Amino acid sequence: MSERKYSNGLWTWGKLGDRFVLDGYRAGWSPSKAIEMAAKVPGLSGVEFTYPNDLNEKNWKEAKAALETTGLKYASCYNNISSDPKWQRGAMTAGKELRNQAVAHTKTCMDLAAEMGGDKITFSLLQDGWDYPFQSDYSAGRRAIVEALRECADHRKDVKIGVEYKMREPRVFCYVCNTPMTTLLLKEVNRPNLGVVIDVGHTLMARETMADAIALLAENNLLLHTHLNDNWRTWDDDMIVGSIHFLETMELMYWLRRVGYGGWYGLDIFPYREDPSKATIESIRFMESYNAVIDRVGFERLGELIARGDAAETLSVIRPAAFGV
Amino acid sequence: MSERKYSNGLWTWGKLGDRFVLDGYRAGWSPSKAIEMAAKVPGLSGVEFTYPNDLNEKNWKEAKAALETTGLKYASCYNNISSDPKWQRGAMTAGKELRNQAVAHTKTCMDLAAEMGGDKITFSLLQDGWDYPFQSDYSAGRRAIVEALRECADHRKDVKIGVEYKMREPRVFCYVCNTPMTTLLLKEVNRPNLGVVIDVGHTLMARETMADAIALLAENNLLLHTHLNDNWRTWDDDMIVGSIHFLETMELMYWLRRVGYGGWYGLDIFPYREDPSKATIESIRFMESYNAVIDRVGFERLGELIARGDAAETLSVIRPAAFGV
Amino acid sequence: MSERKYSNGLWTWGKLGDRFVLDGYRAGWSPSKAIEMAAKVPGLSGVEFTYPNDLNEKNWKEAKAALETTGLKYASCYNNISSDPKWQRGAMTAGKELRNQAVAHTKTCMDLAAEMGGDKITFSLLQDGWDYPFQSDYSAGRRAIVEALRECADHRKDVKIGVEYKMREPRVFCYVCNTPMTTLLLKEVNRPNLGVVIDVGHTLMARETMADAIALLAENNLLLHTHLNDNWRTWDDDMIVGSIHFLETMELMYWLRRVGYGGWYGLDIFPYREDPSKATIESIRFMESYNAVIDRVGFERLGELIARGDAAETLSVIRPAAFGV
Amino acid sequence: MSERKYSNGLWTWGKLGDRFVLDGYRAGWSPSKAIEMAAKVPGLSGVEFTYPNDLNEKNWKEAKAALETTGLKYASCYNNISSDPKWQRGAMTAGKELRNQAVAHTKTCMDLAAEMGGDKITFSLLQDGWDYPFQSDYSAGRRAIVEALRECADHRKDVKIGVEYKMREPRVFCYVCNTPMTTLLLKEVNRPNLGVVIDVGHTLMARETMADAIALLAENNLLLHTHLNDNWRTWDDDMIVGSIHFLETMELMYWLRRVGYGGWYGLDIFPYREDPSKATIESIRFMESYNAVIDRVGFERLGELIARGDAAETLSVIRPAAFGV
Repeated sequence: MSERKYSNGLWTWGKLGDRFVLDGYRAGWSPSKAIEMAAKVPGLSGVEFTYPNDLNEKNWKEAKAALETTGLKYASCYNNISSDPKWQRGAMTAGKELRNQAVAHTKTCMDLAAEMGGDKITFSLLQDGWDYPFQSDYSAGRRAIVEALRECADHRKDVKIGVEYKMREPRVFCYVCNTPMTTLLLKEVNRPNLGVVIDVGHTLMARETMADAIALLAENNLLLHTHLNDNWRTWDDDMIVGSIHFLETMELMYWLRRVGYGGWYGLDIFPYREDPSKATIESIRFMESYNAVIDRVGFERLGELIARGDAAETLSVIRPAAFGV
Repeated sequence: MSERKYSNGLWTWGKLGDRFVLDGYRAGWSPSKAIEMAAKVPGLSGVEFTYPNDLNEKNWKEAKAALETTGLKYASCYNNISSDPKWQRGAMTAGKELRNQAVAHTKTCMDLAAEMGGDKITFSLLQDGWDYPFQSDYSAGRRAIVEALRECADHRKDVKIGVEYKMREPRVFCYVCNTPMTTLLLKEVNRPNLGVVIDVGHTLMARETMADAIALLAENNLLLHTHLNDNWRTWDDDMIVGSIHFLETMELMYWLRRVGYGGWYGLDIFPYREDPSKATIESIRFMESYNAVIDRVGFERLGELIARGDAAETLSVIRPAAFGV
Repeated sequence: MSERKYSNGLWTWGKLGDRFVLDGYRAGWSPSKAIEMAAKVPGLSGVEFTYPNDLNEKNWKEAKAALETTGLKYASCYNNISSDPKWQRGAMTAGKELRNQAVAHTKTCMDLAAEMGGDKITFSLLQDGWDYPFQSDYSAGRRAIVEALRECADHRKDVKIGVEYKMREPRVFCYVCNTPMTTLLLKEVNRPNLGVVIDVGHTLMARETMADAIALLAENNLLLHTHLNDNWRTWDDDMIVGSIHFLETMELMYWLRRVGYGGWYGLDIFPYREDPSKATIESIRFMESYNAVIDRVGFERLGELIARGDAAETLSVIRPAAFGV
Repeated sequence: MSERKYSNGLWTWGKLGDRFVLDGYRAGWSPSKAIEMAAKVPGLSGVEFTYPNDLNEKNWKEAKAALETTGLKYASCYNNISSDPKWQRGAMTAGKELRNQAVAHTKTCMDLAAEMGGDKITFSLLQDGWDYPFQSDYSAGRRAIVEALRECADHRKDVKIGVEYKMREPRVFCYVCNTPMTTLLLKEVNRPNLGVVIDVGHTLMARETMADAIALLAENNLLLHTHLNDNWRTWDDDMIVGSIHFLETMELMYWLRRVGYGGWYGLDIFPYREDPSKATIESIRFMESYNAVIDRVGFERLGELIARGDAAETLSVIRPAAFGV
């Protein structure tokens, strides 16, 4: 029995398309069927929704009932203000009218979270950015985001907003791009119910060190939620957690423990060509394996090795603890 | 009146979606309407189709008539064996049954090209590759591709196949990934009607030098067709040609002239948030501008500067020729 | 006569080596000879030193006299706490003893700046970072940097410290890595004589937008000095300014004017294989050319185009203003 | 007792500098002292020299005696035509006079190899490339390389030349840049004593898959020697083998066995801040660990998993075999 509580986004069981396969790599399953499938994954105890795609004003009671039936918890809900073409030049930086719609959309998502018995939503601004030079008034854009975030946060204090940064996609450059930028913006927004959802794949894509990002957020009391996956550092591939980055994911696990993170270990994977339940299971197992290696070395011993900073020495301790030889 | 003949893909006027906006950034226009719009772009004299999306067994007569009405030429047709979910683990490397279907699909596309009065199709293997370690038998994959390409080429000699490489997307790693790899494979395939469609955005993404890629293909007599666009070197953004890379695009234009390229300057852009016709017009104008700078410096003089290889000297000649100061 | 004042680092005329050519690509010139050569560059009115390499306790009077003779101004001095092997695991994060030495070194550099009649030094922490996972206590490292910077700043108020971030080199990961991270740290340090020296090559390497970085620093009143060069976005190539990035460098020039930057346009180039004076001249000319294009379009008009955000439209205005066609 | 024979370059025990620390991160040891230290590394049975830096006309008898004393074997010698400033614009592409010197240099290196009882040298062209657009006649450069390589190869058949590609450093772009390009060039050169030294860090930097590169070279009968290390995929960090890339290095080990590679597992690491002998030991141990995991899964079983290509399934087999949970 793990000390960690794991959740996954229902989108993992969705149709999962891309710009070449717009109709999806599979048919996908309905939200209620996806909840059923999630409930069968060993170790998974929560799910994450998307508003309005699979949780909305019309179906939330049904969704809540499905959670009760299965025993799964509401972990969070992604407030989707990126996928409707109307946001294509930005949800919060493309003019007052759109911004007001985006704020209202976010408030409704917060209300739905509360109805579901949840305490948080996640939020990202994937269309707020630029593709070409001379296309954005950077300062005005940042001001608009700060103000809109304040307005959202002030809607109700009992629901937290986790802001998820991403360097790019779909825009080539996004305003809310990496850990220090998001920290800087949220300190300026200055509201107690605002924090960060760290998507570690976005952290890798931003050429950051995952463990360092966790440390920075914890230092600023902003670590609210996690989105865990893996990639090849050049794009948000949303792969099985820990499958590509071994020591870095293990170091991420170590720092989540070190800063006393007690929230969800939230999966955010897009298994385009893999069975979604199997990809979820493997993600959890990789994290449990890395935590087992941490325990074999010893949590305190790892701290001493870090303090000493001798890479060859540290590797000579971790390697045999990991592989047994 | 330009010495260069420009074409564009009809997909530029399509709905253009991505994995977050699966329904498209716009409604898009029908193939026949797109042909009408293309015909209004100054300097554009050819269009490129996609089989089976906008050119197929059912509509080719209609498409041919639309070309005749507008005076536009058939430039090429993209043989799409990447977008149907059935190819998700590869069109030519995922087993004999799928491979046979992909070969048959390609042959039909060649036949359609001939019916349209064309002499070539374009072709890429975007799903043939791998995402994870230990997922591919690399040697077997390459053998399968070489054999399948031979079979396609042998179908009919009067239609050429332009192979378009791409390092990644949708697969994280694609077999046919860059200029030297494609050259190597095509030399092994060894058929006279096989060549390369160089998508310069893919060249940039592969961290190659566009002009060098043109030179290499010309040295091997493999330069068949071009797909022109621009990006930020980390992803296939399919932006307005020459808008990001100034000297490199100018150097590309120079080498296309130097190797005596007489084919289409084929646009391949995805103006998600821009007017497609305006993006096409600007792409053509950028290329004409860069060619004008080449002429101001003098084609011969550029050759001398290259032979000398003194960067500061070369820039001191090109810069004022470009900007007038 | 330009409105901008340009400076260059004396290292441009140095021997310039790398890990394969440790003895340098050329013999290089002495500091006093380099000052003479700098004085002959049209448009250059200031120079930047390095302490202790070419400005130190022993030679500063000589250096000051050379400036007076030539009429060049002291622009800044780079406080080098990265090149002595003793700092190889960090100058400020590798233990108290080394940290005290680094602080003392910095204070001496500030004193020298004052003796030279200058008002600022530049400063970077290229060895403070990590190469391997589990090698750094990230939070402790940041705390050490914040405290050491306060101690330096408090030494004397009449000399400003410009902190220059860099994502990597020589360490694979550096603590002070990009624009938002540096902004965040300096806000925490909270001293009036601390600001940022933006090295735009480091900005490009961090996958940021140069103009956006300028805007962010100006919003936070932290833009103190500039280090200008160009590169291919994957490494700090320190090439001729504006030679690779056309529209982005032009946009950088525009934002420096827009935020009312009145400081030095400070070159920081490493012309390993080029004549250093010619590389300096070309860098200045590229910046003047781009400013000329800004003026041709019109500063106000550019602001309107940015506010509108239609890339195809904006390009259709800038392109002919730049290239005359 | 391992089935693999390991060698390391003497430069690992050198002073190891970079452009900021030109005098080196340590004093370094003399070649004969380095041989002594290498002899103490468990599992190491060969060393690699550099001509003329640590093996040359004057000292080769001494070096040979040192090998005999220690029992170490001559693995290879790096023919250094990159570090003398005279090659700064290229050794084989910067004019006839320099090219002749480079060819003569290479021939002498081959002779020395024979005197040492060796059968091969390694060779790279790190200065043959370009930094700026319009700086190279790409086709002429390639022709010059092909001809010079033929001349070197024809010098004597009993010494093989292993060509080591590298995408960049010190030049921003190098001609001999990646696996397919090198394969293509060597097929054109067409000499039996020419092959490839694959530096897997260069493979990673070129965004290739290490195992795929091995497969491609083996398909073309060009795999002559290996240079093993690790990095973060953006630069040639020359780190401890297998410390960053877990599954990819394991897959590399698998394919070296699969293609029947019987040559040296040659380390090429730059432990700037680590003890060189400890870094060597850890590199060997990581490779032995990964081979142990291969054996736990079973070599045949891995082949079956690859043939099936189901990533989640494959990971579910490898993960517990690696970590025991």
